[in-house]
Amino acid sequence: MKAIVSASAEATPQFYDLDPMNIVWHGNYPKYLELGRVAVMKKIGYNYEEMIESGYAWPFIEMRMRYARPMKLDHPVKITAGIVEWENALRITYSIVEVATGERVMRASSSQVAVKIGTTEMLWVAPPILQEKLAPYL
Amino acid sequence: MKAIVSASAEATPQFYDLDPMNIVWHGNYPKYLELGRVAVMKKIGYNYEEMIESGYAWPFIEMRMRYARPMKLDHPVKITAGIVEWENALRITYSIVEVATGERVMRASSSQVAVKIGTTEMLWVAPPILQEKLAPYL
Amino acid sequence: MKAIVSASAEATPQFYDLDPMNIVWHGNYPKYLELGRVAVMKKIGYNYEEMIESGYAWPFIEMRMRYARPMKLDHPVKITAGIVEWENALRITYSIVEVATGERVMRASSSQVAVKIGTTEMLWVAPPILQEKLAPYL
Amino acid sequence: MKAIVSASAEATPQFYDLDPMNIVWHGNYPKYLELGRVAVMKKIGYNYEEMIESGYAWPFIEMRMRYARPMKLDHPVKITAGIVEWENALRITYSIVEVATGERVMRASSSQVAVKIGTTEMLWVAPPILQEKLAPYL
Repeated sequence: MKAIVSASAEATPQFYDLDPMNIVWHGNYPKYLELGRVAVMKKIGYNYEEMIESGYAWPFIEMRMRYARPMKLDHPVKITAGIVEWENALRITYSIVEVATGERVMRASSSQVAVKIGTTEMLWVAPPILQEKLAPYL
Repeated sequence: MKAIVSASAEATPQFYDLDPMNIVWHGNYPKYLELGRVAVMKKIGYNYEEMIESGYAWPFIEMRMRYARPMKLDHPVKITAGIVEWENALRITYSIVEVATGERVMRASSSQVAVKIGTTEMLWVAPPILQEKLAPYL
Repeated sequence: MKAIVSASAEATPQFYDLDPMNIVWHGNYPKYLELGRVAVMKKIGYNYEEMIESGYAWPFIEMRMRYARPMKLDHPVKITAGIVEWENALRITYSIVEVATGERVMRASSSQVAVKIGTTEMLWVAPPILQEKLAPYL
Repeated sequence: MKAIVSASAEATPQFYDLDPMNIVWHGNYPKYLELGRVAVMKKIGYNYEEMIESGYAWPFIEMRMRYARPMKLDHPVKITAGIVEWENALRITYSIVEVATGERVMRASSSQVAVKIGTTEMLWVAPPILQEKLAPYL
């Protein structure tokens, strides 16, 4: 699937994310993916504050991560996130590469659905606000 | 796929795992899955120390999480992990349920492959030690 | 200073809290202290939910930790927290010991002050609710 | 005490560091302090890798944090760390300020002592390597 809009962020793995094998613990990767997702959501003008103002939260219903190479201390990575679905769930795909070598570290994807704040019902058709934010890229 | 051996652990979500939506942040779930995996790996006699003694590390190549319901402060959950593949990758499936209601919180799976400690080459056939540990359950 | 009320919790250090030196990363200790504080706050009937119902948040103004010994994987610890001041700030002292040996791992203390929810002004005299909760122990 | 050498780093608080009060959880501040400490240790040429090469680990014996203001999502902060003692323990002081306003967020300090890797004995006189690294600043 091709992203209609994408953005990138860079991060440098820190000591506190490493495990005794001297690599970033596998369960810490969602924090890196978040940086890419935040970048693309800011680009379309729909960050956390704007979500809340719009009256919707967007809980995760799925996350999938495929690890290609370990992340290492002081080896900066670039996280790219792109929006690939938006009509029902908001689906984002991710790629993390090591900056110095360009080698792939991870491919991942996530899906979120809208929930009207104050309720718990998941909306299986995305509310119009998402489409409006994406209009310039459609 | 049916697990040949499984085990469970309980945990209570803490304040520091919550996000501003007052639910456990989606990226913190791998810490809960870890408790289930640790339980089943201890049961077969192959915990972190025993892995290192065996000369192998088991980095993750994939993790998939499907979120069914949010986890909430002080609502204990039970994590069950079961080994479903072992000939090539070590594949584990997980289920998290809320203890009080029995409602499902998450289904997940992970895959790890062996790497001889001191090298970086992934072994696409699992070393004999894993089969030996699983022998009583085969 | 002597605690007027105290309570304990146990925890087992997990792999994801370890750093490359194979010990719990120093910055992860506040999560262990939290377990002790939660235990004593529950005992007096003033947990997170009850704080919010009372109309007050209790942000931290100070935390001090003295590390005596490393925490290690699978070596359970017992965290004891006791309330030592309550008239102005809420001050709690902590002790962490290794369960198997009784050896001290950490001594710590924290101070929190009340803030009326919806405002940002710190109250340098604790609101009556705290004294009421502590009445049975005074 | 005056620092003989100091350095700074910037960071932007992320969603996953926030708690239900919508501010960075108090126990996550050590991760921010780490960024400042890493900056000053790199400046003197004694980062994590160089520590290990020198044969010493530097476990923490004390950390003290005084919180002045909450850290908030998307409000970048600047962390400055300076070395103030080195003859026995390595003592570092920290200051965190909000970039946009210059307002103080935290003052903190930490102390670490050398341990020869492979032993557990704390050295109460710092090994010569630290003094060598600091020579240009003395």
